[in-house]
Amino acid sequence: MRVRHSKQVVMATTYALLAEEGLAGVSVDAVARRSGVAKTTIYRHWPSREALLLDACAQMGPQFEVPDAGSFARDVRALAQRVVEQLLSGPYAAILLSLMDAAERNPDLAALLAAAQAKLVEAVRMVSARARGRGELRRAPDAADLAALIVGPLLYRRLFSHEPLSDAFLRVVVDNAVRLAGGNIDSQARGLRR
Amino acid sequence: MRVRHSKQVVMATTYALLAEEGLAGVSVDAVARRSGVAKTTIYRHWPSREALLLDACAQMGPQFEVPDAGSFARDVRALAQRVVEQLLSGPYAAILLSLMDAAERNPDLAALLAAAQAKLVEAVRMVSARARGRGELRRAPDAADLAALIVGPLLYRRLFSHEPLSDAFLRVVVDNAVRLAGGNIDSQARGLRR
Repeated sequence: MRVRHSKQVVMATTYALLAEEGLAGVSVDAVARRSGVAKTTIYRHWPSREALLLDACAQMGPQFEVPDAGSFARDVRALAQRVVEQLLSGPYAAILLSLMDAAERNPDLAALLAAAQAKLVEAVRMVSARARGRGELRRAPDAADLAALIVGPLLYRRLFSHEPLSDAFLRVVVDNAVRLAGGNIDSQARGLRR
Repeated sequence: MRVRHSKQVVMATTYALLAEEGLAGVSVDAVARRSGVAKTTIYRHWPSREALLLDACAQMGPQFEVPDAGSFARDVRALAQRVVEQLLSGPYAAILLSLMDAAERNPDLAALLAAAQAKLVEAVRMVSARARGRGELRRAPDAADLAALIVGPLLYRRLFSHEPLSDAFLRVVVDNAVRLAGGNIDSQARGLRR
């Protein structure tokens, strides 16, 4: 039990340091100092700073459960909202930029981003399959393409153009996904509860 | 003439350092060392490292001329290709990440990104207006929204998911923009010369 607890504390500390100071702020020394867990203990569980970092990001990072809100438009909206809340709000936005930057030079971190993306694509795939099962959609666009067209514009606004991720913009993104999949914008998107 | 030349050399050196080493690699010392221009001369033209950096990015950064390729689909494709070539290929991808990261804490750099985005939006606006003038489009989506739906997915693939910016994916993005603007996918996008 104590081992489990100290592992948990080390994970949370690593993640918090990452959020506050970026990748450069995460060292085994800094994690040991702040968590109160001995460096030898940390190295017993993780062979390197890199391993620690990857594990913390994988465990503490955003989770994308698959929404089931009754219509394709509602499901896409729920997904988009989760991306905004988990990936692009608060501390994770800064972590994401650090990870994206480091991933340019580090294939393990690039793989971590790819894994987050795979979860997203899987959620889009399931949501689309269910909607087609209900007869909502006339087309079956590739789930990875659809994910890029949903998440990309959110990423762009939050990290590049710094325009607000307003409710109206989320609506544009959701309507676009519905249109791309051959759903009916009017009956679906307009019927969303706001 | 000599002043103009040394300013140009300082600009190019600053930009090259930024591309190679990121924001952290750019200091007035480093620029002076590499360019051979004296620090006092540099400070005569730019009051601070920040001012130098902003000026270099503004002058050397990507230019988005407005394409005029005969159809909305071709124009959007030309724009998307320019974004891929100028913003997301080669050294500028790394610069962009550095800028995006620093912009989280520095409003001047955020303004620089916003200015790049404004140029993009203006190009989208002109391309759309021309296409509507030719009777190609049934809808007039907001140019900033359209820019986000064109550039966002490219940014996402290049910096987040690391999937290839393939020709097929560019086609998805262009078709999507055409559909959003109420153009005809079949007659427009399929007719693109590849």
